[in-house]
Amino acid sequence: MPAYKAPLRDFDFVLNELIEVQNIIPTLPGYEEATADVFASYLEAGAKFCENELSPINRAADEEGCLFDAATHSVKTPAGFKEAYQQFCELGFTGLDCDPEYGGQGMPKVLGFPIMEMQCSANVAWSMYPGLSHGAYSAIHAHGTDEQKATYLPHIVAGDWTGTMCLTEPHCGTDLGLLKTRAEPNDDGSVSITGTKIFISAGEHDMSDNIIHLVLARLPDSPKDVKGISLFIVPKFLINADGSLGERNTVFCGSLEHKMGIKANATAVINLDGARGYLIGEKNKGLACMFTMMNAARLGCGMQGLGLGEAAFQGALAYARERLQMRSLNGPVAPEKPADPIIVHPDVRRMLLTQKAYTEAGRALTAFLALQLDIEEKSTDDAARQDAADLVALLTPVAKAFMTDNGYTATNMGMQVLGGHGFIREWGMEQLVRDCRISQIYEGTNGIQAIDLLGRKVLMDQGQKLRKFTKMVHKFCEANAGDAQLKEFVEPLSALNKQIAEITMNIGMAAMMNKDEAGAAATDYLRLIGHLTYGYFWAWMARVAAGKAEGSAEAAFYNAKISTARFYFSKLFPETQSLIVTLKAGAKPLMALDAEDFAF
Amino acid sequence: MPAYKAPLRDFDFVLNELIEVQNIIPTLPGYEEATADVFASYLEAGAKFCENELSPINRAADEEGCLFDAATHSVKTPAGFKEAYQQFCELGFTGLDCDPEYGGQGMPKVLGFPIMEMQCSANVAWSMYPGLSHGAYSAIHAHGTDEQKATYLPHIVAGDWTGTMCLTEPHCGTDLGLLKTRAEPNDDGSVSITGTKIFISAGEHDMSDNIIHLVLARLPDSPKDVKGISLFIVPKFLINADGSLGERNTVFCGSLEHKMGIKANATAVINLDGARGYLIGEKNKGLACMFTMMNAARLGCGMQGLGLGEAAFQGALAYARERLQMRSLNGPVAPEKPADPIIVHPDVRRMLLTQKAYTEAGRALTAFLALQLDIEEKSTDDAARQDAADLVALLTPVAKAFMTDNGYTATNMGMQVLGGHGFIREWGMEQLVRDCRISQIYEGTNGIQAIDLLGRKVLMDQGQKLRKFTKMVHKFCEANAGDAQLKEFVEPLSALNKQIAEITMNIGMAAMMNKDEAGAAATDYLRLIGHLTYGYFWAWMARVAAGKAEGSAEAAFYNAKISTARFYFSKLFPETQSLIVTLKAGAKPLMALDAEDFAF
Repeated sequence: MPAYKAPLRDFDFVLNELIEVQNIIPTLPGYEEATADVFASYLEAGAKFCENELSPINRAADEEGCLFDAATHSVKTPAGFKEAYQQFCELGFTGLDCDPEYGGQGMPKVLGFPIMEMQCSANVAWSMYPGLSHGAYSAIHAHGTDEQKATYLPHIVAGDWTGTMCLTEPHCGTDLGLLKTRAEPNDDGSVSITGTKIFISAGEHDMSDNIIHLVLARLPDSPKDVKGISLFIVPKFLINADGSLGERNTVFCGSLEHKMGIKANATAVINLDGARGYLIGEKNKGLACMFTMMNAARLGCGMQGLGLGEAAFQGALAYARERLQMRSLNGPVAPEKPADPIIVHPDVRRMLLTQKAYTEAGRALTAFLALQLDIEEKSTDDAARQDAADLVALLTPVAKAFMTDNGYTATNMGMQVLGGHGFIREWGMEQLVRDCRISQIYEGTNGIQAIDLLGRKVLMDQGQKLRKFTKMVHKFCEANAGDAQLKEFVEPLSALNKQIAEITMNIGMAAMMNKDEAGAAATDYLRLIGHLTYGYFWAWMARVAAGKAEGSAEAAFYNAKISTARFYFSKLFPETQSLIVTLKAGAKPLMALDAEDFAF
Repeated sequence: MPAYKAPLRDFDFVLNELIEVQNIIPTLPGYEEATADVFASYLEAGAKFCENELSPINRAADEEGCLFDAATHSVKTPAGFKEAYQQFCELGFTGLDCDPEYGGQGMPKVLGFPIMEMQCSANVAWSMYPGLSHGAYSAIHAHGTDEQKATYLPHIVAGDWTGTMCLTEPHCGTDLGLLKTRAEPNDDGSVSITGTKIFISAGEHDMSDNIIHLVLARLPDSPKDVKGISLFIVPKFLINADGSLGERNTVFCGSLEHKMGIKANATAVINLDGARGYLIGEKNKGLACMFTMMNAARLGCGMQGLGLGEAAFQGALAYARERLQMRSLNGPVAPEKPADPIIVHPDVRRMLLTQKAYTEAGRALTAFLALQLDIEEKSTDDAARQDAADLVALLTPVAKAFMTDNGYTATNMGMQVLGGHGFIREWGMEQLVRDCRISQIYEGTNGIQAIDLLGRKVLMDQGQKLRKFTKMVHKFCEANAGDAQLKEFVEPLSALNKQIAEITMNIGMAAMMNKDEAGAAATDYLRLIGHLTYGYFWAWMARVAAGKAEGSAEAAFYNAKISTARFYFSKLFPETQSLIVTLKAGAKPLMALDAEDFAF
């Protein structure tokens, strides 16, 4: 496994030089104390933990996997997982951005995101245990009664209890309207839940004293569709009146899935056999409550693509600098060695720069989004809150799908740089590929993200949210139009930004006649917006770097940013040219063939 | 695992309706009896074998893997592998396209290729045992002495002995000039070989009585670079004068690699400890001899991408027709069911059609190339032989890299269509992804293929070979220019074909000043030529189908071809637009960043 080194310099660049969190965060009520020093000390502690505790156990954990004991319905996590988790709790990271009222550190999300990225790089399967738990925290914090919050949150924040999201059933994943798990009301206000949930990440394990399942189920008198789903809290151990753990609830792990990757995360089949549950939020509004968790989970999923791309980049870069093979086409670069290090070869550089360009832009995007989440939650300015919320809504599906697709590309390139050694388990690069692959599927497949973006986020409000973003891009381009050094970045960005409105309108008009036009355009459209977003961040990063490079002791760092921006705009951004053509081709080529005639 | 069904109708289309083998093959000396009936009966027997014997054991074999016993240096292959291999030998498939003088069936390669595709679809790890053996056959047949041929070929053809290729060493893969394995001459004309070879596919196993290793090594007085490598035959068991098996040679499997995929193929570390070897071919010309095997191996590698893409398509199509989830955006298609089958969704169709379009074009390309191989070998017309050889040389790296890259895309799409179920091992779709991944790496990484294409095949002869192909495309476009039905295919194909010359010349001129320009262009250039090739075959297939669709009892089959051609030209071929832009950007964006400045 490539040893992980946290990219602290780049976090510093993004947080303090690009989005300049210190101009915003300390002005938000409750974050007065989240100063640059506090950020730095958390980031350093997180880096140390991820480098020294999580990264070293990642490879062995993939081999060992999780062990299910059918007799006791229990799951043993791989060696070191429990101990690392205890340390994580002790460091206060389980409650990093949680409400101080329940024991949280009260730090902003824009600090939580880099901490999450580091976990994903170092050990993504492990990161999902606290990750899912944080999702449960968010849902209970947003929708729970005061009593529910008081009962569950202090434990989830402290980390001695963890949480899950129980949505999927064997016959339904995307289409939750079909779900069959039923909740029968009891006399005491609780319900008895019966059904089977599958693909439950961190669904059963030995890392915490209790597991708080958040379960979607249907009450008897509820509509039989998506409008009849309610959300319930189903603890593994029931809670006594004094808050102590009571009897074992009838919610059991039935088995673990054998998977391509994230093998060290327990993906459980969860059987509910009249399990005691408690309604959270309004009856029949379960899906809306769950979406509180889903949006965070989708961003978290994007972080997996980002973190794994970074890990693959680090592994590939180290190998490319050391592996000697062939000479540079222009003659020996290291004549004293039997061959040149493969980083001299343009095609190896193409792969490394692709990883680097995607990863650094993704880091900027997620930091930007995390800051918007903080503004949305804490700002006293209604308009600022609304703008932030709109940008988050618009860009969450982009972050999820674009970052995981690019992360998969990046991990595969990491493997390719290592050649045959990349395919061998011992080197750890193929694990990054396997671990990354699920991120394109879960929390709504990337195809679903694309429909969410185009249908719900763009077309449904006639492009209002989209225009908030394209206006930002437009302002940036306008402000920097006269800068000769930035021209190579600003011009193509500005050109695409201008085309987006027309492209969007054309799709919208076609979709009014035939809704499949939206479905057919969605995936290409998401990649187009993805490049608009990354193009914006790369141009912005280049501007910041250009302003600082000259005479700086860190000139090499800043010049590398400009060089990577140049690579991005000349080698990756041009994908937009093909996307515009395929978008124009519309739905017909996809829909013409009869389902019976796909094979003979 | 999705049950495999051989695409016999499509083989028939490609062989008999597209490239019309029956107009050519029976005119070649030695192939007079390879009639349509003979083809059909072999294809049916191959289909039956792959469907009934290979496909059912594929999934379990991936779980079981190969077992290495260090005490005896022996390897046990997974359950059923040995028995399937025996049956394969009895059916005569090990010698299908081999020389009748050594017991072969004497069938053309254009029949061997679809048989190979079926094996790759049904069980790619298994297919490599006879696959590597066939490579050894080719090298010995081409370069061995009469005595060597008489000694080894009858057994390899019958299948009771198998073969390997031993090239890679721990410190060298691509750069074989660095190899350290040494051969010391013995008094009897043999050599004693000492060294370590790694990544030896089918390197040790229990399926045959003997294993004939073809080993690259350096003689004491040979140059220390790529010009000092010789090829040696190193049998696992030495051969007695009477042809029977003699003492065990000191060539031992030291361990097996643990890999991401093709787990049922034994990837061995082979230790040679003064092992007895016999020079084959000329001294110091080992690399050239090995390339006899490498070219076939590269095409075989392309077949893996093709076969696995087909398997993934079949699995995804079956799932997409059955899985009920959400309604068509335009309203219920199957109102009697709780939801519509997911094949109604445009984005699912996009994935299925991508698999289909890549697979069917790849099938046409390989059939075409196999036919050229037969012409190259058997034709009495010198010019025809040269043309065929040139087309094979030009398009072999394209077939290897473009087909495996597209195969990886196709297997990943297959997994994506299945959503979460695609990630679960039990469904078998993730195995196809893992098994396919290595095909982009071995037999020369796809980056190396790209340099082979652009550097060696195109620029080195000033585009002569390339022009042979572009002339074919040009003739096709000219001949069909007036056909209104084909206009949508011929026009973009013709446009790209015209651009290729200029694009190639620009790269060539830039490379004269700076060789890195070729290295930087290679991967994009290969994809561009790949689309030129697939575009040609899709336009050609559409023409054949258009001529037969009307009034045919198989109108649905032919119309599906036209519909898939339309999908290809409107949704996949436009990738060329981006490629042309990124090619123009040249090497500078790749080479500017100092190797030290990739990370801070």
